[in-house]
Amino acid sequence: MAEVKDADTIFKELKTHSISEFFRKNSQMLGYSGKVRSLTTVVHEYVTNSLDATEEAGILPEITVEVREISEGKYLVRNTDNGPGIPQKMMGRVLATVLSGTKFHRYIQQRGQQGIGGSGCTLFSLITTGKPIHIKSGTGRSAYECDLTIDIKSNKPLISNMAEIGNEFKGLEIRGEFGEVKYEESDHGVYEYLRRTALSNPHATIHLINPDGKEFNFVRSVSEMPERAKPSRPHPLGVSTNDLLEFAHNSEGKKISIFLSDTFSRMSQSKVDEIAGMVPDLDFEANPHDLKWDDAEKIVKVFRGMKWMAPDLDTLSKIGEEQINATIKNILNPTFMSVVERRPKVFRGGIPFVVEAGIAYGGNAGKASDGASKGVLIRFANKVPLLFDGSVCAISSAVNGMDWKRYGIKDFNSEPVSVLVNVSSVYIPFSGVGKQAIAQEPEIIEEIKLAVMDCARGLQRYMSGERNKSIQASKYNTIMRYVNQLSMNLSEMTGVKYEKIEKELKGIVDKRYKKLVEAEAKANMEAEASEPAGQSSEGQEAPQESEEQE
Amino acid sequence: MAEVKDADTIFKELKTHSISEFFRKNSQMLGYSGKVRSLTTVVHEYVTNSLDATEEAGILPEITVEVREISEGKYLVRNTDNGPGIPQKMMGRVLATVLSGTKFHRYIQQRGQQGIGGSGCTLFSLITTGKPIHIKSGTGRSAYECDLTIDIKSNKPLISNMAEIGNEFKGLEIRGEFGEVKYEESDHGVYEYLRRTALSNPHATIHLINPDGKEFNFVRSVSEMPERAKPSRPHPLGVSTNDLLEFAHNSEGKKISIFLSDTFSRMSQSKVDEIAGMVPDLDFEANPHDLKWDDAEKIVKVFRGMKWMAPDLDTLSKIGEEQINATIKNILNPTFMSVVERRPKVFRGGIPFVVEAGIAYGGNAGKASDGASKGVLIRFANKVPLLFDGSVCAISSAVNGMDWKRYGIKDFNSEPVSVLVNVSSVYIPFSGVGKQAIAQEPEIIEEIKLAVMDCARGLQRYMSGERNKSIQASKYNTIMRYVNQLSMNLSEMTGVKYEKIEKELKGIVDKRYKKLVEAEAKANMEAEASEPAGQSSEGQEAPQESEEQE
Repeated sequence: MAEVKDADTIFKELKTHSISEFFRKNSQMLGYSGKVRSLTTVVHEYVTNSLDATEEAGILPEITVEVREISEGKYLVRNTDNGPGIPQKMMGRVLATVLSGTKFHRYIQQRGQQGIGGSGCTLFSLITTGKPIHIKSGTGRSAYECDLTIDIKSNKPLISNMAEIGNEFKGLEIRGEFGEVKYEESDHGVYEYLRRTALSNPHATIHLINPDGKEFNFVRSVSEMPERAKPSRPHPLGVSTNDLLEFAHNSEGKKISIFLSDTFSRMSQSKVDEIAGMVPDLDFEANPHDLKWDDAEKIVKVFRGMKWMAPDLDTLSKIGEEQINATIKNILNPTFMSVVERRPKVFRGGIPFVVEAGIAYGGNAGKASDGASKGVLIRFANKVPLLFDGSVCAISSAVNGMDWKRYGIKDFNSEPVSVLVNVSSVYIPFSGVGKQAIAQEPEIIEEIKLAVMDCARGLQRYMSGERNKSIQASKYNTIMRYVNQLSMNLSEMTGVKYEKIEKELKGIVDKRYKKLVEAEAKANMEAEASEPAGQSSEGQEAPQESEEQE
Repeated sequence: MAEVKDADTIFKELKTHSISEFFRKNSQMLGYSGKVRSLTTVVHEYVTNSLDATEEAGILPEITVEVREISEGKYLVRNTDNGPGIPQKMMGRVLATVLSGTKFHRYIQQRGQQGIGGSGCTLFSLITTGKPIHIKSGTGRSAYECDLTIDIKSNKPLISNMAEIGNEFKGLEIRGEFGEVKYEESDHGVYEYLRRTALSNPHATIHLINPDGKEFNFVRSVSEMPERAKPSRPHPLGVSTNDLLEFAHNSEGKKISIFLSDTFSRMSQSKVDEIAGMVPDLDFEANPHDLKWDDAEKIVKVFRGMKWMAPDLDTLSKIGEEQINATIKNILNPTFMSVVERRPKVFRGGIPFVVEAGIAYGGNAGKASDGASKGVLIRFANKVPLLFDGSVCAISSAVNGMDWKRYGIKDFNSEPVSVLVNVSSVYIPFSGVGKQAIAQEPEIIEEIKLAVMDCARGLQRYMSGERNKSIQASKYNTIMRYVNQLSMNLSEMTGVKYEKIEKELKGIVDKRYKKLVEAEAKANMEAEASEPAGQSSEGQEAPQESEEQE
């Protein structure tokens, strides 16, 4: 019989843990599972931060990633950028406090958003090697270096060996040692991650020095900063009651009416008056800090019943149609390709997002590592490559949910087809802390589907020619397989010589069979022509000349 | 051109957030995504806690879940159990502080382990309705009720209306209102969740009152408490250097030698002496609080080079072979079934776990909601049903990675086959905070595969009979399709009458073709016999009589 405990005994053990302790025990939730993935996760976090920081400082990024093997399963990773650096007194909180960051509360499209990534690397270094990470940071005004790790119990930084260094160093260099990792030039490795990052960030120059000392240089193909996403204010249709209360209680406006027009986009004075008219019991001159749930709920309900201009759309930053075209040609060199840039949409009522998609067929498209044909998805969120957890991602869900047969792809998983999708938004709802998959929000899935379908219409026409050839081959083989057997039987039955019958039969099959196939192909073409294919002109044969891209 | 910011400007916005704030913004990571899933998540968290609490208190669980619609998308959930209750002064921390709990630091198999679930529900209620949850708790010694919510900024409880109630109430009742949810009796709904929970916890009685007021009673079929998993000490092979340091720094032993024998299982005095001999530079009389990484690393290295007895295996609690058999019969009534209980194994060197598996074919096995045949996975972790995120789960990975053709299943996704797997362990490495999928640890995947393959060997023999029938039909149809066409051609060619040729041809095909099929079937059988099938006797036809199960 089990030991019987009462509540007092059970709850004597009650403890509260820090977020660092939680991730120490569950580091797989941050993306640290599997040696190859773990190393990619470290590089992903550092490079993402470098791209965000340089973008914010208006600097064309030049990033160097060095990976060096120290001993088996133990590697040094060095990430250097030419960004703005981190001020000395902030270093600890930025890189050694989980859930600290500059991006969490912002309403602007950036790659990072949680304040977990960089500190997560520091934590992972600590739990696999016991070592601090080493930082060099130059802001232009001053430059410092130090060792940094996390006090897991308190989730606070532990800083040592802080020293001023020559002010000529500008940017940020992080050096860390990591255990339980492995460098591999596979689909999920650091090389592939950086290659895809370079493709979706043509303004960045990225150097990789691999453990053999070999240097790969992904040189920028564009030397202008990309149009930066503008900070935006939330759209009235994108907020929940809880959001509204949160905004109100933190508002600097002294009156609810001012708070509303200060906080939201598309909120003119006349809109505020209209709302006030529809919530007559609420005093709009009252302090927003005193706003209660029931009144906030009423306001949100009124929001949803009103007509609004669509959200500001210049808050989104895309890869761009031209760049995706160049990217696909560059890496896949397909026999067919089609790229679509959709107009921005919103999800959850008012959070703007935009989808870009491309399809490539033939060439190096849709190839498994063993060279076999295999549908391949190339996923990006805010231009950051997503290499893991594809199966729970909205992008996969959309692509797998399509009726590919309609577009001439019999089985997506075994044809030489690649689909590239990038989703950009102020807020990407990731499915997990490791940010490798977009949660399956129906509106996002639907929009991705429409984008890919747009691309696929061109593919459909291209494929109908390809398909006829393949049907022909397969049917022909089926019949020919039985000619031998039948020739023998017929020879027995009719007394005519076996060889003669076989030859005649083969002739008949060759001739008659071709007619059958032609008739069938014609029927197929007609069936396709009868379905809506208005936008099929978007599909295009891949041009043969290669575009400029260093 | 983008606004250029320097480091000082950028990092002026640096903020540290509470874990509650993080999950307020990313509630999808806790399982709150989609209305149906969100409601199931709430019930899952409460029922899991009730089962753990009753188990710990040695009480046969009786749990009532009531779900009532308040308005569209808004539901009341009431979860009542007969467990030990929560002492008055602990209520807030248990149910309104994310990352507080009794289970996080324990080394014992339990359903909960993170201290997130219950508080997560409180948070979700707050952000979707603005309301606190209501608690009634009786510990036998005293009974209280109160309203409870979370101060999101500080991740601290806010308690109101605390009142003593009659001491006859014993157990815990939680009532909460939740928005953005929906009750649906689908594969992912509350009803299915509770049904599966009842199946894997035959000692529990669970009542469900659905929004129509209809009551479902899953009555216990076993009235003895299941053998409880014993608390265990970590095995020396299952600890990392960081774990060892963590244990050492929290140790109550005054010497490293005492700390080692107190902390680990299988650690005799002679083992400690042996280790001390192999780390001669380290003073084993020193205080474990002063142990450093390098020495800890040496000790762990020595651990890994030594021979150890396997971990204690009575630390694991299973569903049990008999119960799985009854479960499968009960819900699937298949034409074939096979169940396997494997011996416990370890992953990451020393964390014990055990896999149970069952396969069912035919009957109600492998049915999609539209009635079509479709391979179905029924997943459990520590007897808790996993209804979501199947695609990233080690269980799915193992089952999808099998060569099902070997076992007579041509395409797992379109045959009437169900596979049930339960993984039990002191520490289940979940892939996400929502605990709906087991991370893809290679050793766990491998062991699941072996378990399912064990079951599948019986299926293989059962299927070879089924397969022959189906091959026959398909080939026969292929040939017959061309008899008409050929008869006409042959008539032309030989001058023999069309009808005569057609009749003769059909006769030949009927006769000759049967021989071909028989020869092929024989070849198949021989090929199968030549592969190792030593345990195929474990497969069994499902007995016709139903076993006792109320």
